Amino acid sequence: MTQKMFASDKNSGVHPLILEAMGQANDGHVPAYGNDPYTAAAIQKFKEHFGEECEVVFVFNGTGANVTGLKAMVRSHQAIICTDGAHINSDEGGAPEGFIGGKLLTSPSADGKLTISQIERQLHHIGNPQRSQPKAISISQCTELGTVYTIDEIKEITSYAHENGLYVHMDGARLSNAAAYLDCSFAEMTVDAGIDMLAFGGTKNGLMIGEAVVCFNPELAPEITYIRKQGMQLGSKMRFLSVQFDRLLTENLWLDNARSANHSAQLLAEGLSAFPEIRIVWVPGTQKIPD
Amino acid sequence: MTQKMFASDKNSGVHPLILEAMGQANDGHVPAYGNDPYTAAAIQKFKEHFGEECEVVFVFNGTGANVTGLKAMVRSHQAIICTDGAHINSDEGGAPEGFIGGKLLTSPSADGKLTISQIERQLHHIGNPQRSQPKAISISQCTELGTVYTIDEIKEITSYAHENGLYVHMDGARLSNAAAYLDCSFAEMTVDAGIDMLAFGGTKNGLMIGEAVVCFNPELAPEITYIRKQGMQLGSKMRFLSVQFDRLLTENLWLDNARSANHSAQLLAEGLSAFPEIRIVWVPGTQKIPD
Amino acid sequence: MTQKMFASDKNSGVHPLILEAMGQANDGHVPAYGNDPYTAAAIQKFKEHFGEECEVVFVFNGTGANVTGLKAMVRSHQAIICTDGAHINSDEGGAPEGFIGGKLLTSPSADGKLTISQIERQLHHIGNPQRSQPKAISISQCTELGTVYTIDEIKEITSYAHENGLYVHMDGARLSNAAAYLDCSFAEMTVDAGIDMLAFGGTKNGLMIGEAVVCFNPELAPEITYIRKQGMQLGSKMRFLSVQFDRLLTENLWLDNARSANHSAQLLAEGLSAFPEIRIVWVPGTQKIPD
Amino acid sequence: MTQKMFASDKNSGVHPLILEAMGQANDGHVPAYGNDPYTAAAIQKFKEHFGEECEVVFVFNGTGANVTGLKAMVRSHQAIICTDGAHINSDEGGAPEGFIGGKLLTSPSADGKLTISQIERQLHHIGNPQRSQPKAISISQCTELGTVYTIDEIKEITSYAHENGLYVHMDGARLSNAAAYLDCSFAEMTVDAGIDMLAFGGTKNGLMIGEAVVCFNPELAPEITYIRKQGMQLGSKMRFLSVQFDRLLTENLWLDNARSANHSAQLLAEGLSAFPEIRIVWVPGTQKIPD
Repeated sequence: MTQKMFASDKNSGVHPLILEAMGQANDGHVPAYGNDPYTAAAIQKFKEHFGEECEVVFVFNGTGANVTGLKAMVRSHQAIICTDGAHINSDEGGAPEGFIGGKLLTSPSADGKLTISQIERQLHHIGNPQRSQPKAISISQCTELGTVYTIDEIKEITSYAHENGLYVHMDGARLSNAAAYLDCSFAEMTVDAGIDMLAFGGTKNGLMIGEAVVCFNPELAPEITYIRKQGMQLGSKMRFLSVQFDRLLTENLWLDNARSANHSAQLLAEGLSAFPEIRIVWVPGTQKIPD
Repeated sequence: MTQKMFASDKNSGVHPLILEAMGQANDGHVPAYGNDPYTAAAIQKFKEHFGEECEVVFVFNGTGANVTGLKAMVRSHQAIICTDGAHINSDEGGAPEGFIGGKLLTSPSADGKLTISQIERQLHHIGNPQRSQPKAISISQCTELGTVYTIDEIKEITSYAHENGLYVHMDGARLSNAAAYLDCSFAEMTVDAGIDMLAFGGTKNGLMIGEAVVCFNPELAPEITYIRKQGMQLGSKMRFLSVQFDRLLTENLWLDNARSANHSAQLLAEGLSAFPEIRIVWVPGTQKIPD
Repeated sequence: MTQKMFASDKNSGVHPLILEAMGQANDGHVPAYGNDPYTAAAIQKFKEHFGEECEVVFVFNGTGANVTGLKAMVRSHQAIICTDGAHINSDEGGAPEGFIGGKLLTSPSADGKLTISQIERQLHHIGNPQRSQPKAISISQCTELGTVYTIDEIKEITSYAHENGLYVHMDGARLSNAAAYLDCSFAEMTVDAGIDMLAFGGTKNGLMIGEAVVCFNPELAPEITYIRKQGMQLGSKMRFLSVQFDRLLTENLWLDNARSANHSAQLLAEGLSAFPEIRIVWVPGTQKIPD
Repeated sequence: MTQKMFASDKNSGVHPLILEAMGQANDGHVPAYGNDPYTAAAIQKFKEHFGEECEVVFVFNGTGANVTGLKAMVRSHQAIICTDGAHINSDEGGAPEGFIGGKLLTSPSADGKLTISQIERQLHHIGNPQRSQPKAISISQCTELGTVYTIDEIKEITSYAHENGLYVHMDGARLSNAAAYLDCSFAEMTVDAGIDMLAFGGTKNGLMIGEAVVCFNPELAPEITYIRKQGMQLGSKMRFLSVQFDRLLTENLWLDNARSANHSAQLLAEGLSAFPEIRIVWVPGTQKIPD
């Protein structure tokens, strides 16, 4: 009988099919820095999921993916609106401030989601240089608490944002889990819902190392490769990052992995519910605080 | 009869005695960048007020004074604890993040003061690189709401800070007003109370242009002149900054000005109290929210 | 008989007419941060000299003026081409790198001027993210060696720059001296010659404190006030900066001061030429290395 | 017969033994972020080569390794002395300036090496805040031109540096090739020769992804893990970075790989020498320009 592990998805290893694909990519010499057929194929897979118009670059980790995307959206005198529990605020060692030089404007959030009214309350002193000017919103799907925005909630945020001259970034470190939960496509939650820039997670869904920055807004695309390089996120033997994504997006491996993780969370919750002294703070696969 | 003005102290002009001193300093050639007798005399005045051991440099504005001092205290992966209404957080256009590259960890404050328990709540994940590491506290005296820390409150904060490896910065843009209100010396509220670094305000107390960074902690002093220059705060014709401070600190001009401003605030409050439709949110010269 | 002083123009004081104007501006309360009639009048004077379309903001010092203008022109992954003796490279304490986060691409220059062929040699690896991408050129008029670009030389640089997608910044810390020497208007050397952004010097031409950022390229203008604030260059009692410029640009005071300075340099050179053991490295008011 | 490839080492794949080790590490769950037995073992291997006192952290790429190490050595108002062809100057997309905020002081070098006299010429204006203050030297072993410093040359530089209050950083992206060429240990070229901080290259010597920052100076060590995180260089599934180094440093695999690469360069040079129209600019495995 297989032992079930409930620790962090970062403690897990690499899915065997991903590892196999990496081994197969280790075949002779190919050009470095992404000018190779593996990277071309991986980008094509992204385009199948997100549409032909997106720009995709591969980076090393989630912080790198978030900061690369966000730096394309704001200048240093501008600000990013997010929850105070957002990964970019709480767990990236100050990388956004350090590399962008701008400010995060945070709001506390009981369920990990950002609301329109919280965004609205940050839109004051517009045009006054004394205050960092809000220029982007960052939301996480799933949130850091495991909750999931509905597609309508995302659309409401992007509509409000665009009406107010703000870009919307999505931290999708666990986007596959959200897609599995919502039973929708990647595109429905992102490009079709008005997202401008996406950090697409790989490491937490069975990859070894690697995340992708996916840009849907063509005015933000031109500088991304330069920002990636200055942000120390350009890998030389790129094929070993990109082939992982190619395989992940083939034959619904991403979905199998995400469903398995979601299911494990469910099992964990059910198992723990047998212990009356344990209170489940968040019901996995729901968006509600339990009663 | 003289008309009373109640607008911002930044709308006011220059005190005539300050202007007179500036005119008298306009006498021939002197070395630039602070190697002049006017600057030496002004520094000496600071030492009379704050003790011989302090290091003093003159800068252009309050943002420059705060950021210069704070940059000497933290590196970019470190964080500064302050209230969310702190000037460094709300009104400096993101200069701390832009120039230091670090994070501000903010707490809401009803009366503008930071409390020990608020500081304590920020001291988690110490040693974990995922989180910007708290290294400094910044408090404003007077606060941005016009309230004033007692000397004991300041000592309580600096003791707690030093026990926990944190430096304490004071934004003293209106320090003179606080000294007038508390009827104490500058030193009692600052160096004697354990403050490591002070931004000493001039512009809002009758000067034309100019603030001072006063460093009491000798381990923080060596880099300040370099930080000032890189922070674009080094004036060439320094004598015209420094002579203002020399005069301000002579014959208690700073105290007369501060008392006059405090008195005007009192008058304004009294006058407004005649109008029942106006609610005084903060009673000037007190530390309490009115009932 | 008046004693002649040949030390740095930064050692000199304030022109009496400037000081007088500052005293006259000390008249009651006016709005802070530039929303005052003195600043409006000073900006109007700039428009008379440079045309109605320019954007003008006042800052504290030359480093602040240069960096504010340059930051509007480049992002951090981009580079600025200049001579290695350029003030922005040699004498600003790393402020450009620190505040912009970008790179200076420097060339040695025997006469302080940048040549087309030096610029051309920097235009390699365009589109390759491994290299900071050249996006702006900065020239100094007068140069740091006292030499002066002819109007044709400036036009040649701006034409070449614009053909290659580069902006041109001018460090005009001593622009008045160049105008006096070339006997031309400010506009002929700047906006009419294709300059995008100008740091206009005041302190070295009789002012107490103050420089101006003058933007001629409307696409660069919108962010300047935000950059100024984040760069710690926004003065609160702005009238005392702006009134100096208003007076300087009235009745050709700028020209009288510049001519006087140029004449002093001439006198100094002539006096020194009596000493055979002294070699004049640069003949003031010329653009040639002496034989 | 095996086909010889002479393209960049970044175009090559992963050594089969490295890949095998990565596969073996894919065994169950282990703690993330380096708190795992694979990382402990890899660090131990480094200590066997470099001594017990070194501090080792793994990062993603060469730019990340260089910038992480350098940021621990200088503050933003300080400068790093290097050749103008140094990778940190020419090929890192402005990452040092962007992330450190400081300046590189460069000298042209015909053979890729930095000389004492070049360093000496940069040591002017010490103590003058107008100039970025030299605080570190960075040399590359091998250099970007394939030349190799002798151990005596390294010692001469580190002695001169330490006498003048400067740290010495070594970009060892291809350190193994230098060790193979000099037939010496890693320690002899680095810690025993006075190097303070090393970027130890892996990707160009048969690894898939990964470099190491090795700190020999204990005063520089404490902040490295924080700088790594803020620099977006902290991998979550760390074992897959570290196990590569463990294997590389086992049974002299590093040396076999380096010798093979050096030999290929030799073969290429010999083969090309048959063509009179081709001039060999650098003889591989020597430190001289050919006659």
